Amino acid sequence: MAVRLDEIVARFGGTLGGPANLLVGAGDTPLHRIAPLDIAGPGDLAFLANPKYRRQLATTRASAVIVAPSVDDCPVLAIIVPQPYLYFARVAQWMNPPPPVTAGRHASAVVEGEVDPSASVGPNVWVGTGARIGASAAIGANCSIGEGVQIGEGARLFPNVTIYADCVVGERTVIHSGAIIGGDGFGYAREADGAWLKIPQVGRVLIGDDVEIGAGTTIDRGTLFDTVIEDGVKIDNLVQIAHNVRIGAYTAIAGCTGIAGSTTIGKRCTLAGAAMISGHLTICDDVNVSAATFIAKSITQAGTYSSGIPFLEHGNWLKNFSKLRHLDAMADKIRTLEKRLADLEKKSS
Amino acid sequence: MAVRLDEIVARFGGTLGGPANLLVGAGDTPLHRIAPLDIAGPGDLAFLANPKYRRQLATTRASAVIVAPSVDDCPVLAIIVPQPYLYFARVAQWMNPPPPVTAGRHASAVVEGEVDPSASVGPNVWVGTGARIGASAAIGANCSIGEGVQIGEGARLFPNVTIYADCVVGERTVIHSGAIIGGDGFGYAREADGAWLKIPQVGRVLIGDDVEIGAGTTIDRGTLFDTVIEDGVKIDNLVQIAHNVRIGAYTAIAGCTGIAGSTTIGKRCTLAGAAMISGHLTICDDVNVSAATFIAKSITQAGTYSSGIPFLEHGNWLKNFSKLRHLDAMADKIRTLEKRLADLEKKSS
Amino acid sequence: MAVRLDEIVARFGGTLGGPANLLVGAGDTPLHRIAPLDIAGPGDLAFLANPKYRRQLATTRASAVIVAPSVDDCPVLAIIVPQPYLYFARVAQWMNPPPPVTAGRHASAVVEGEVDPSASVGPNVWVGTGARIGASAAIGANCSIGEGVQIGEGARLFPNVTIYADCVVGERTVIHSGAIIGGDGFGYAREADGAWLKIPQVGRVLIGDDVEIGAGTTIDRGTLFDTVIEDGVKIDNLVQIAHNVRIGAYTAIAGCTGIAGSTTIGKRCTLAGAAMISGHLTICDDVNVSAATFIAKSITQAGTYSSGIPFLEHGNWLKNFSKLRHLDAMADKIRTLEKRLADLEKKSS
Repeated sequence: MAVRLDEIVARFGGTLGGPANLLVGAGDTPLHRIAPLDIAGPGDLAFLANPKYRRQLATTRASAVIVAPSVDDCPVLAIIVPQPYLYFARVAQWMNPPPPVTAGRHASAVVEGEVDPSASVGPNVWVGTGARIGASAAIGANCSIGEGVQIGEGARLFPNVTIYADCVVGERTVIHSGAIIGGDGFGYAREADGAWLKIPQVGRVLIGDDVEIGAGTTIDRGTLFDTVIEDGVKIDNLVQIAHNVRIGAYTAIAGCTGIAGSTTIGKRCTLAGAAMISGHLTICDDVNVSAATFIAKSITQAGTYSSGIPFLEHGNWLKNFSKLRHLDAMADKIRTLEKRLADLEKKSS
Repeated sequence: MAVRLDEIVARFGGTLGGPANLLVGAGDTPLHRIAPLDIAGPGDLAFLANPKYRRQLATTRASAVIVAPSVDDCPVLAIIVPQPYLYFARVAQWMNPPPPVTAGRHASAVVEGEVDPSASVGPNVWVGTGARIGASAAIGANCSIGEGVQIGEGARLFPNVTIYADCVVGERTVIHSGAIIGGDGFGYAREADGAWLKIPQVGRVLIGDDVEIGAGTTIDRGTLFDTVIEDGVKIDNLVQIAHNVRIGAYTAIAGCTGIAGSTTIGKRCTLAGAAMISGHLTICDDVNVSAATFIAKSITQAGTYSSGIPFLEHGNWLKNFSKLRHLDAMADKIRTLEKRLADLEKKSS
Repeated sequence: MAVRLDEIVARFGGTLGGPANLLVGAGDTPLHRIAPLDIAGPGDLAFLANPKYRRQLATTRASAVIVAPSVDDCPVLAIIVPQPYLYFARVAQWMNPPPPVTAGRHASAVVEGEVDPSASVGPNVWVGTGARIGASAAIGANCSIGEGVQIGEGARLFPNVTIYADCVVGERTVIHSGAIIGGDGFGYAREADGAWLKIPQVGRVLIGDDVEIGAGTTIDRGTLFDTVIEDGVKIDNLVQIAHNVRIGAYTAIAGCTGIAGSTTIGKRCTLAGAAMISGHLTICDDVNVSAATFIAKSITQAGTYSSGIPFLEHGNWLKNFSKLRHLDAMADKIRTLEKRLADLEKKSS
């Protein structure tokens, strides 16, 4: 699909700019795809959103570039907009629409619940008794949709998603392959001999609208009540969300992160990759957790929190990190030194 | 399902208590479900197991509460028992039995092995040649059961579980969706040019009785012998267990934990979330590993072990954690200070 | 299958050795399997590759042992070779060939693409429109192969693998169950109100030849271009590889590791378990990252890098690790002490 530069500006706003000699007839420039500054060639629309890539602008071969008003030296055609990254996202969505949903059930699907006639159910899918698949929803091949599950209008499940009984998926929510929604939470009481007695997990998982859940991510059902993922939450791959957790609206959670049971995360938080959040905590709204950070206490103030460890060349690491076992002794020695030094100072004064 | 308070006491023991004026006819109180203290309403049975929630007791609207003998101010009906949490688990199991297993194979299942007539095999399941599914076992939709696999009596596999050839699953063991049992261990010899030569992984995974394995968890088969999960082990979601590992009976492993190859974990251990255990180690019985802890040496003494890192506000983190690169230098400086100070002290004495 | 000792030597090289009295007719010794030194019995071929197991040699009951030339006291028959582990791997592969691929499609498979007549497609597999399965490739039960995917000659997918549209899998590459190839990368622009606008992920995943990918591992497609896994890369279980990543040839990545978006890893690197690599980094060739290490900066020099934290008994940990919050203050105190001491020293000299 080729679009004209002026079609983009007409649809998404912004001002055409760039070298004066290129501006004549610029609106007719055909654009075929979006590409990064350094890779783009003729027919490509590029964008400059991250100042880190500023120097790539001078040599870009793109036909046009989306830039901020502060950029006054774009060597090719420019679309000048206040927020280039958001603008890029909008144009990219428009130029790369998701594949259309083909209504109907594949002959090999086993459908025991209700499927809206406008929805698509792929090969070898199972839809359990009492489940309901909403209008225009798409269920990919080999998905297992448990009894009583509700899938909202326009939701899209890629192949091989599993949803346990009675969970609810909101409208336009996207779930990637291998995600497991509604497995039992990890709850046991311990017998005197060490054996574990299972606590039945009878809550559900409630997933809001416009959520996206990554490949291989697991979200457990609540113990007595529900695990809740609010609207607009975005979750990356291989994230573990335990029973009774609540994730506030518009929070984004990067890959390899784990959130232990009964923790509440506020709205508009960001958890970077490999964050680990303990159970029974409350994290307030607008908290950013850095990558590889371990959160073991509740957070009551918006801000950025970190515990990632700097790496060292191995020999250096050995020398320095072995001292972690002696930090308390080092602190004691410093206190003792301070005392002895104060005594000496007194004496000598 | 509603049960009467005295049915519970008759079946599970304990003493009826609470305010004297409520005790007349108390045994007839109908109870519909179990709920947490703060959410419970009329018709609910609550429980007080964690002292942290003690203050919720005064205002609970539950019809009855399971409490320890030390609690003498329960404002509603009480079941007084020595271990409220275990009692809660027993009552919860009784009030929330697992759904019954419907014997028979779904017409869409591909069964090349043997299935006990009392077992249930769901839609689009594959059971390979030589596999045996035991009495009353339930195999959920889209499961893949490899050649020669044995599934014990009463075992339950949720949809979309994969078991590689020749692995063994014990009686009453539960495996959640997305779990992968018996994949090849990660074993290679390295050629001179850096290329990797695969070591065939010809062992199996042997899983005992009454084990539970979480969603998305992976357990690799042994290299020359077997990977072994003993009876009563409980494993949470997204846990990786490498080849040749042995996990002792009644050990519990929380989510996002990884155990590298050829490590042996003792009995009745607990590994909290995101623990990482190196390979070729031996961890003795009754060890507790704290969350986000990295175990790189064998442990020979029961106890609790930790290496989790406290988080800080980001600016504070920058200032403090950059010093990790200078710990050895700091220790040197302290030693030098001690020596110089001792010299001065000698001089001034 | 039994093989004779001299068949092995004829095929793979090495010199027969061991006690002189055993050497007569030694070549006829039948060997049934390969086993570790301590477990091997009569009819087993063992190997000594790791000096750690040297002491097991004296008491082994193996019929023969693969050893290095430096070992001159083997009490049983020996195959003497310069690299016992590589030799073991070669013999093990020969004695344990992968099961043969049975050409043909299972009747329950839904095949909309092209499958080479020599390839095997298992039960309940879906192969989308335009996909091509190469000669002698094997697609296990319940796999989902998206539209336009190319699977190379001799590739092997275990059951329940998911590959999104248009990805490419090289020749002889092995993908384990539960792996998800080509899911959308985690890319969003943020609106003023905190909502996330999805960046379409229109790149592919390109996987080279002779790659192996572990169970439950996720590899995201590129945003505008491709995520690339070069030839001979080996990836363990539950590894997350984000969009636009490139992994150099012969690099090996152990379980529970995460690599964030747009990072490039060089050739012949090894990432040990639970390594976490930030996004937009470049790691050069021949880098080894230790277990549980967090890499937040690019690495330009070959070598070994670490940030793993030593564990302590819990009480000790509390005392020592709480000091991490005060490292900067400790460094200040040391500086102050040095200054005050220097003043005193000057005064007293």
